[in-house]
Amino acid sequence: MTAIVKGDLLYTGKAKEMYTTNDPDILWVAYLDQATALNGKRKVAIDQKGLLNNRISSLIFKDLAKHGIPNHFVQQLSDHVQLVRRVKMIPLETVVRNAASGSFERKFDVDHLTKFATPVMEFFYKSDALDDPFINDSQIEALGVATQNTLTEMRRQALLVNQRLQTIFAEMGVQLVDFKIEFGLTDQGHVLLADEISPDSCRLVDEKTQQSLDKDVFRKNLGDLTTVYQEVLTRLAAVEGSQQ
Amino acid sequence: MTAIVKGDLLYTGKAKEMYTTNDPDILWVAYLDQATALNGKRKVAIDQKGLLNNRISSLIFKDLAKHGIPNHFVQQLSDHVQLVRRVKMIPLETVVRNAASGSFERKFDVDHLTKFATPVMEFFYKSDALDDPFINDSQIEALGVATQNTLTEMRRQALLVNQRLQTIFAEMGVQLVDFKIEFGLTDQGHVLLADEISPDSCRLVDEKTQQSLDKDVFRKNLGDLTTVYQEVLTRLAAVEGSQQ
Repeated sequence: MTAIVKGDLLYTGKAKEMYTTNDPDILWVAYLDQATALNGKRKVAIDQKGLLNNRISSLIFKDLAKHGIPNHFVQQLSDHVQLVRRVKMIPLETVVRNAASGSFERKFDVDHLTKFATPVMEFFYKSDALDDPFINDSQIEALGVATQNTLTEMRRQALLVNQRLQTIFAEMGVQLVDFKIEFGLTDQGHVLLADEISPDSCRLVDEKTQQSLDKDVFRKNLGDLTTVYQEVLTRLAAVEGSQQ
Repeated sequence: MTAIVKGDLLYTGKAKEMYTTNDPDILWVAYLDQATALNGKRKVAIDQKGLLNNRISSLIFKDLAKHGIPNHFVQQLSDHVQLVRRVKMIPLETVVRNAASGSFERKFDVDHLTKFATPVMEFFYKSDALDDPFINDSQIEALGVATQNTLTEMRRQALLVNQRLQTIFAEMGVQLVDFKIEFGLTDQGHVLLADEISPDSCRLVDEKTQQSLDKDVFRKNLGDLTTVYQEVLTRLAAVEGSQQ
C-alpha cells in the first residue's frame, strides 16, 4: 500500500474531523480532544479524549471484523488518527437499547435501567436543522432517506453488533445499556458499519459500582472523563489481548 | 334484540362519553356537542357537533363494513347516540398520511400537502401523562403495549381503511390528507377497528377551493365548524345514498 497522505477537510463533526487522502477509497479521521453535549451547544477541550476514543474505537472495530461484522475501519495510523473506508453515510443514527435510560426513560417514564426482553431499536434522522428527530421506517421511506431493504439490513447488523458488544463488555465487567451506531453505503450499495464505537456513543455502567463509564460523566458532570475513558480502554485492551 | 338500556359512565373522552348497557357486549356512545384542541387544554361547546359527527361516523363505519372492513359499529340509536361492540382498546393512535400536514410537516420541514408515494403510517402511545408520544414498533413491544402480530394486523387494516376512505372522499370532491384511527381487541383477540371516523379525526381539504373541511377549522379559527361539518355530512350522505 502506498503511504497515505492527508488531503482536504471534508467534514467537522462533534468530536472528529474527516479528511480526504491520496486514495479515493480511504478517509483520514482525526479524533479531537474535545467533548460536546446538548447537540453541540456545549463544547469543552479535554486532554487525551481523542486518543482514548481512537484506541477504543479501533479495538472494537477490529474485534467486530474478526467476529464477522465488517466495518469501515482500515488502520489506526497514530494516537489521534484512524484510516477508514470511504462510504456514503446514511443520515440516520441507529440506537440499540438493552435497558431504559436517557430519552427512552424520560419519554416513557420507565424506571432507570429497566431491562428489555428484546433490544429496543430506534432511528433518528441526522439533521442539525431539525434537531435529529426520532423517525420511523415509514417516514424514512417517504422522505427518501433509506429504502426498506437498507433498514432491514441495518437492523440485522445492529443486532449482531449488540450481541458482540454485550459479550465484550460483559468480559470487562461492564453493562452495555445502549449505544448509537451509524452506517454507510459502499459503491456497490452494501450497508457497512461506520462512524465510531466508543464511550461517546455507548452508555456503559460498571457492574460492580454502578458507576457511569461513558459520556454521561461529562453530560452530568459526574467526574473526570479522561480517567473513566482510560479505565474503559485498559479493560478493553486486557480483553482484546492488546498492548495499549 | 332486547331494547338496549344505558348503564354506567365508563369513560369521558374529548368529544364522547362511553356507557355500559344491559348487554355486556354493547357500549353506548354519546357524541358530545363540544370540541377540544391542544390535547384537551382548549374546550368549547359547539351546537350540533355531536350530532354531525355521530351521523358522519355511522355512515362511514357502515360503508367500511359493507366493503369488507369489520368495525365496532352496531347501530345509530339517536341524534347523539351510537351503539358499538365492546372491545379492549389498544392504547395506540394509528395515523395514516397521504400528504404532509400537521406534526409531520413541522417535524420534517416539508412543504404543506406534499404527496407521499406510499402512505406514511405512525403510532402514538395514548397516555395523557406522557402527552401521547410518537412511538415505534420496537418500543411498543418493549413496553408491552401490543405484539408485533397485532401491529401487523393494525397496519393491514389501516391501509384498507385508507383505500376505502380515499375513494369515498374523492367522490365527495375532498382530498383525504391524513386521519387517525384506533383499534381494539375482541374477546377472541381479533383486532377490530373502533373509536370514530369523522372530521375530528381526519384532515380533509376541498379539492376545488382548498378549504379545510375538518377540525383544523376549529384549531386554527378558520370559520364556523358546524357549517363545515354539515357540508361534509351532506356530501357524504349523497355519496352513500342516505337520507340525512
